[in-house]
Amino acid sequence: MNKSYNQIAGKNKGRIEAISDGVFAVALTLLVLDIKVPVSEAIKTEGQLFASFCLITPKLLTYFLSFMTLGIFWTGHTTQFNYFEKSDRNLNWICLFFLMLISLLPFTTALLSEYIHFKVALGFYWLNILLLGLTLLLQWNYAYKRNLTSIPQNEQEAINKAMRRRIIISQILYAFGASLCFVNIYLSIGVIIIIQLNFAIPIINRRI
Amino acid sequence: MNKSYNQIAGKNKGRIEAISDGVFAVALTLLVLDIKVPVSEAIKTEGQLFASFCLITPKLLTYFLSFMTLGIFWTGHTTQFNYFEKSDRNLNWICLFFLMLISLLPFTTALLSEYIHFKVALGFYWLNILLLGLTLLLQWNYAYKRNLTSIPQNEQEAINKAMRRRIIISQILYAFGASLCFVNIYLSIGVIIIIQLNFAIPIINRRI
Amino acid sequence: MNKSYNQIAGKNKGRIEAISDGVFAVALTLLVLDIKVPVSEAIKTEGQLFASFCLITPKLLTYFLSFMTLGIFWTGHTTQFNYFEKSDRNLNWICLFFLMLISLLPFTTALLSEYIHFKVALGFYWLNILLLGLTLLLQWNYAYKRNLTSIPQNEQEAINKAMRRRIIISQILYAFGASLCFVNIYLSIGVIIIIQLNFAIPIINRRI
Amino acid sequence: MNKSYNQIAGKNKGRIEAISDGVFAVALTLLVLDIKVPVSEAIKTEGQLFASFCLITPKLLTYFLSFMTLGIFWTGHTTQFNYFEKSDRNLNWICLFFLMLISLLPFTTALLSEYIHFKVALGFYWLNILLLGLTLLLQWNYAYKRNLTSIPQNEQEAINKAMRRRIIISQILYAFGASLCFVNIYLSIGVIIIIQLNFAIPIINRRI
Repeated sequence: MNKSYNQIAGKNKGRIEAISDGVFAVALTLLVLDIKVPVSEAIKTEGQLFASFCLITPKLLTYFLSFMTLGIFWTGHTTQFNYFEKSDRNLNWICLFFLMLISLLPFTTALLSEYIHFKVALGFYWLNILLLGLTLLLQWNYAYKRNLTSIPQNEQEAINKAMRRRIIISQILYAFGASLCFVNIYLSIGVIIIIQLNFAIPIINRRI
Repeated sequence: MNKSYNQIAGKNKGRIEAISDGVFAVALTLLVLDIKVPVSEAIKTEGQLFASFCLITPKLLTYFLSFMTLGIFWTGHTTQFNYFEKSDRNLNWICLFFLMLISLLPFTTALLSEYIHFKVALGFYWLNILLLGLTLLLQWNYAYKRNLTSIPQNEQEAINKAMRRRIIISQILYAFGASLCFVNIYLSIGVIIIIQLNFAIPIINRRI
Repeated sequence: MNKSYNQIAGKNKGRIEAISDGVFAVALTLLVLDIKVPVSEAIKTEGQLFASFCLITPKLLTYFLSFMTLGIFWTGHTTQFNYFEKSDRNLNWICLFFLMLISLLPFTTALLSEYIHFKVALGFYWLNILLLGLTLLLQWNYAYKRNLTSIPQNEQEAINKAMRRRIIISQILYAFGASLCFVNIYLSIGVIIIIQLNFAIPIINRRI
Repeated sequence: MNKSYNQIAGKNKGRIEAISDGVFAVALTLLVLDIKVPVSEAIKTEGQLFASFCLITPKLLTYFLSFMTLGIFWTGHTTQFNYFEKSDRNLNWICLFFLMLISLLPFTTALLSEYIHFKVALGFYWLNILLLGLTLLLQWNYAYKRNLTSIPQNEQEAINKAMRRRIIISQILYAFGASLCFVNIYLSIGVIIIIQLNFAIPIINRRI
C-alpha cells in the first residue's frame, strides 16, 4: 500500500486551532506597540500631559476598531471550527491563508488611521475585510461539502444556512458602507464602524 | 428549523481560554521591549556600566509592577473560567473586551512610570484597573445568572460570594489608594503597590 | 531505584506542540512589523498614496513568501507529531533546535528581500531551508526508530516512506532551485517560489 | 459554608502550562528582533555583503546561547509539570515569578553580549540564571511537599532526588563558571556555554 504525504498532512484540527489562537493573540496586541507614551520635554503641567494624551486618542480609536474587527473574525473562526470534526491538508492551507490576511489587518487598519481622508486607504482596508470574508466562506463551504463537519443530521441545513447567510450579509453591508466613500468618506467609515459594533453587540441583527 | 448565527457563535470555552492565555503571554513580555541595554560610548569601566544599569532600575520596577497586575487579573480570569462549563456569544465578547483592556495595561503602566509625579498619569492607570475589575465582575455575574457555570449545588452561593467580594473589595482598595493622590502622589502609588503585593502574596487577606 | 533527570525530562508531547505553535505564531507575525505604513509629508493626493503603497509591494511579496515557507514547515511539523505517541528528551531538543531555525526564517527572508540580487543572500536563505529540512528528517528518523510513534502496523512502512520521500524530494528541488543562481539569480528565486507554491497548493505533486 | 477567594484561585494546571508556553514562545523569538539585516549604501558586492553579515555573527551566537538557556529552563518546567496533578494559588504565583525571570533573560543575555568584557554584565546574567534555578527548586519543593504531584509511590523518592539534584548540581556548576571571571572573563563565559551545551546535548551527565 502506498501513501502520499498530501494524504496524511494537515489532519490535526487541534493544532490548527492552536496556531490560529496564537496568530490572533499576537495580532490583537501588535497595534498597542503603535500607541506610544507621549515623551516631550515640554510636558510640565497636568494640563499639558492631558492635552498630549488627547493627541493619541485617534490611535486608541484605531486600536479599538482593529480589536473589534479581529474579534468578529476570531468569533467566526471559532464558530466554524466548533462544527469541524476533522481536517485535511486543503482546509489546513485555507486556514493558513486566512491567518495571513489576519496578520495584515493591523497594517491596513494603521494605513486607514494615518490616511483617514483618502479613498485609497479605505479601499485597502475594505479589500482586507472582503478577502477575509471570502476565505471564511470558502473554508466553510469546503469543510461542509467534504463532510469534515460533525453536525446532527436534523440541524445540518439550518446551520449551513446560518453560517453562509451571516458572512454574505455582513460582506454586502461592508461593501455598501465602503461604496459610500464616493458620497463622503467620514460617512463611509462611520457606517462601517456601526456595522461592526452591531456584529459585536447585537441589537438589530438578532435574526441574522 | 431556523438557526441564527448569534445562537451558534462563541460557544467554545476552550478557545476563549487559549486566546486569553496568548494575549496575556504577549502582554507580559511587551514591557521587556521597553528595557533597553544601555548603549553608550562613554561606558568604559565596570563602575560606569553599573551606574548606567542603575538608571534603568525604574523601568525594571515598572516591569515588575505591570507583571504583578497582569498576574492578578490572569489569576482572576482563570479562577472564573474554572467554574464556567460553557460559553455563549455574549460571554465571548465580554472576554474580548477584557482582553482589550489587558493589552492596554502595558501602555498605561508605561505612562505612569514616565510621568510618575502627575495625577493625570495615575488617573489613567487607575481607570484601566477599574475597567478591568468591572469587566471581570460583569463576566462573572453574566455567566452565573445565565447558568453557564458548573458548581456543586451546595457550594454555589459561597463561591458566588467569594468571587464578587474579592473583586469589589480590591476595587474599593484601589479607589482609596488612587484618591490618596490628592494628599501625596508617592503615598498613593506606594499604597497601590502594597495592595497588589498583598493580592499576589497573601498576608492579611487570608479571609477575603 | 535510581532515576536520572535525563530519563524523566522532555516527555510531554503536548507541551512541545504548544510551544511550537507559539513560536510559529509569533514568527508568522514578526515580518508584518517590517511593513510600515508609508509616512510622508509629500503624500497629498490619492495618486501619491497609491504610488507610495506600490513601493511596499516587495515587502508584501516577501511577507507572502515567508508565510508560505513557515506554513509548509508547520504542516510538516504537525503531520509528524500526529504520528508521535510520546516524546523523550532527545526528541524534545531536536524540536527546540528546529524552532530556533524557524525563528531565524523571518531574518533570512528579510535578508533575501533586501539583497535580492546577491548570491550570498540567497545562499543564507537556502541554508536556513536546508537545515530545517535536515532537522525535520532527523526528528522523524529518531522518533520512528525509537518507537515513539503510534502507527497501525500495516501502514508503518508506507507512512515512513511518504514522510522521508517528501522531505528528501523537496530538499533536492530546493537545492536545484538554489544552484540555478549561478545561471541567473531571478530564475533561481522564481523556481524556489514555484516549488513552494506547489507544496502549498498541490498541482503536480499529487503522488509525492 | 464560607469560601475565600484564595482557596479557589489558581487551581487550573492546564492554564498555567498554556501561559508558560506562550511566554516562552515570545521570549524565544524576542531576541531575533535584535538581529537586523545589515542595511548600508556601501554594500555593493557579494564580498561586502558577506563581510557585513560576519559582523552580526556575535548576535547570532548570543541568540543561540539565549535559545539554549530558555530551552533548558523550559524543559525543566515541563518536566516538573508532568508530575504535577493539580495546582493552588501559591504554585500559580511561584510559576508567574518564574515567567517574569524568563522574560528578563533576553535582556540580560543582550546585556552580556553588548558588554562581554565586563564582570558586571556577567554578574547580572548569572544572577538571572541563579534566580531561575532557585524559583524552579522552590516550585518543586512546594508542589512535592503539598502533595500536588502525582507520582507512583515507589518512584517518589527517586524522582524527588533526581529533580533536586539536577537543579542543585547545575547551579553549582554555573556559580563555579561565573566565579572564573575573576581569573579570566572569556574563560568564565566559555565554561558557562560548555555547561549549557552539556545540559542540552548530554554527554558527560548521563547519570545526573
